[in-house]
Amino acid sequence: MAGRVVVLCGGVGGAKLVLGLSKVLPPEKLLVVVNTGDDFEHFGLRICPDLDTVTYTLADLADKERGWGRAGETWHFMESLRQLGGADWFNLGDRDLALHAERTRRLKAGESLSEVTAALLDKLGVSVPVVPMSDDAVRTIVETDEGALPFQHYFVRRRCEPKVAGFRFDGAAKARPHAAFKAALTDAEAIVIAPSNPYVSVDPILALPNMRQAIRTAPAPVVAVSPIVGGKALKGPAAKMMAELGVPATAEAVAEHYRGLADAMVIDWQDRGAHDAIAQLGMRALTVNTVMNSLDDRIALARDVLDIAGTIDARAPA
Amino acid sequence: MAGRVVVLCGGVGGAKLVLGLSKVLPPEKLLVVVNTGDDFEHFGLRICPDLDTVTYTLADLADKERGWGRAGETWHFMESLRQLGGADWFNLGDRDLALHAERTRRLKAGESLSEVTAALLDKLGVSVPVVPMSDDAVRTIVETDEGALPFQHYFVRRRCEPKVAGFRFDGAAKARPHAAFKAALTDAEAIVIAPSNPYVSVDPILALPNMRQAIRTAPAPVVAVSPIVGGKALKGPAAKMMAELGVPATAEAVAEHYRGLADAMVIDWQDRGAHDAIAQLGMRALTVNTVMNSLDDRIALARDVLDIAGTIDARAPA
Repeated sequence: MAGRVVVLCGGVGGAKLVLGLSKVLPPEKLLVVVNTGDDFEHFGLRICPDLDTVTYTLADLADKERGWGRAGETWHFMESLRQLGGADWFNLGDRDLALHAERTRRLKAGESLSEVTAALLDKLGVSVPVVPMSDDAVRTIVETDEGALPFQHYFVRRRCEPKVAGFRFDGAAKARPHAAFKAALTDAEAIVIAPSNPYVSVDPILALPNMRQAIRTAPAPVVAVSPIVGGKALKGPAAKMMAELGVPATAEAVAEHYRGLADAMVIDWQDRGAHDAIAQLGMRALTVNTVMNSLDDRIALARDVLDIAGTIDARAPA
Repeated sequence: MAGRVVVLCGGVGGAKLVLGLSKVLPPEKLLVVVNTGDDFEHFGLRICPDLDTVTYTLADLADKERGWGRAGETWHFMESLRQLGGADWFNLGDRDLALHAERTRRLKAGESLSEVTAALLDKLGVSVPVVPMSDDAVRTIVETDEGALPFQHYFVRRRCEPKVAGFRFDGAAKARPHAAFKAALTDAEAIVIAPSNPYVSVDPILALPNMRQAIRTAPAPVVAVSPIVGGKALKGPAAKMMAELGVPATAEAVAEHYRGLADAMVIDWQDRGAHDAIAQLGMRALTVNTVMNSLDDRIALARDVLDIAGTIDARAPA
């Protein structure tokens, strides 16, 4: 048990589990690897939605009701933008803007995204190690019936309305996984796939060169938490995407998606009927409460994830 | 009197006179040419302080006490920036940020600075034609006892504290004056040099290729308004710069600066003692109130400037 718990993480749901894990593990035992496929440039500013959500969540600055951005936010920038007939499809709060601006300034000054992320977390008093999956640009493109759309155009501008046919992760084939991520895999205590969107939060990480192989051969149990609960995504378009891809929006289908990669699935008690089907895929299934309304829920799920990881023989092939 | 009144303009003082002129001339009789030597990029955003001030002034959005930015501004971006240990030396209001962001977005989409400026003024309901002196980048560099400083670093970051030795306008020799500016000079009714800083607001415009010659040979009277009143600059570092350059901070010295270019100087009644010295430089001097506290002051000065221009034989060599 020398290594770290490595978490593959998207935005809201992932950040909640990460917060729980950060309350039960010391910082040096954790490494949070965040999807950057959603990142984009807007107004010349570099915006990293998943890193932002993880950052605000760990710094206790996140708006808990809205699910993104900062608590106590104001919107004078957006008001003024509308007055100017500006591109107002992506909401940016006045306080939130500072994170994007300072990140952009540091990137332009030559810092890597990892360095910027570490510096900003440090300024906010967060000691949990958080790294972008890569310092190289990977851009998620959603293939839809309206054509190929950059992720934020699909997600925010078009409100997930276009029908999804597939996904592309531009740049992934050449992007280098973050060095700490690669290093941590070799002796990880556990690898956790957070309850994030499998297609657009986790798959971009798995699309990095040799990443599936690196995770499969890592001497650590791989535990995935289903983001689908009772046939629905708690947040975001995962269930809608599954339906459009002809996949049932179920915990089994999530398990099928991670088949050959994950040793165990953590599913919600509402999906306890999927237990046997998941077992038939060769994965363990743990049925617990995965709906994280309170901090106690986050901590309890973190403990459940670590518990099931602890029961798996790390050296057994997935 | 077929042509336009062409105003060479910097920030605050210039914008006030422009507002006055806009109240006594129809839009098609005016062309406001704004210094872009102060422009810079901050956080990846393109900031054009003089264009911003003129824009906010004409749109009646300017903060009248602070002298820059928008009235009713909020500062949550700056608060958050400080929390992140960010680069907080340049104040950006939450509402003001939208102008920089939308400008940057349009520039990145391929619009010229002129096109962006025209579009934003139109959105704000301003019909006065305002153009940047050039769509090409000109950057004012202040040579000081601390070395060569980009203008905003000298002006804001170092609060004009370094001792000035000279100025450089990087890019000016290759910058093309705005086409409407060049065209308007050929049949201008008058050319007005606003009460802006001669060194860092007006000289960058005059540093454009052949600009001094174009103004000198234009068949229009050239009237300059002194930004120095009673030995002081009403706003900004003009008087401090003059002292450091070994030039007395007087209306005569401003006249001397524009000698060979301006046909007439408009000076404040406080400087009426300079009248004869200015006449000896071969320029007419008009002594009026140049301190623009109220809108009526702005309009009165605009009328005074147009009146003296009307008394000058446009064809006489300067």
